[in-house]
Amino acid sequence: MGDDEAVLAANRTFYGAFEARDMDAMSDLWEHSDRAACVHPGWGSLAGWGAISASWFALFQNGENLQFIITNERVAVEGDVAWVSCDENILADEVGGTVAAMNVFVRHPDRWRLVVHHGSSVAERRR
Amino acid sequence: MGDDEAVLAANRTFYGAFEARDMDAMSDLWEHSDRAACVHPGWGSLAGWGAISASWFALFQNGENLQFIITNERVAVEGDVAWVSCDENILADEVGGTVAAMNVFVRHPDRWRLVVHHGSSVAERRR
Repeated sequence: MGDDEAVLAANRTFYGAFEARDMDAMSDLWEHSDRAACVHPGWGSLAGWGAISASWFALFQNGENLQFIITNERVAVEGDVAWVSCDENILADEVGGTVAAMNVFVRHPDRWRLVVHHGSSVAERRR
Repeated sequence: MGDDEAVLAANRTFYGAFEARDMDAMSDLWEHSDRAACVHPGWGSLAGWGAISASWFALFQNGENLQFIITNERVAVEGDVAWVSCDENILADEVGGTVAAMNVFVRHPDRWRLVVHHGSSVAERRR
């Protein structure tokens, strides 16, 4: 499996864990470091795995059911770092929408690990 | 100058160009590549320097005067890639606000160049 394919597989693992509310899979995917960073839509930036893990725990406890249809995945690899931009098309119990996401991965001996996730809601266009 | 300092200097160059509406400085800073990506608050993801440069051109033509106070800069370097998270505290003619930003830079022979900018508005907390 080439780098691009491995990174895209890691990206799919992320959304699979998100959809399944699987804290173990989410924890396995992330780099447990102070340099990890995460921005959920409308949130400020969370710095470090401690704060990030707490956010996933809270989201998984309180959130509604979400289904992700991921489109427009674009991957780039530079040395041991990769970034993926994609659109999260979200189907939810009440209201869905589209989130523009940027995910950054770092190559570890065993796998690519997520070190940055930044998601932001795409505003609906005025007609 | 160490890597961290050089990357933070590039990050400051970005906000200096943004504030000054300096298209030449913005163009010099960005990597002119298909893998470059940019998300402005509320926008979808722009892929490639062509689309990104057009967005800056439009923003600089139509935008109001903005002043940026950058706080909580956190930098990480892995090989030839670096990422910076920061808060953009924006003072504007009408209404300001806070944008959570993630900027990714790649080391080029001459300097660190911006390859990803993702900014998203931080929602005001309900009281």
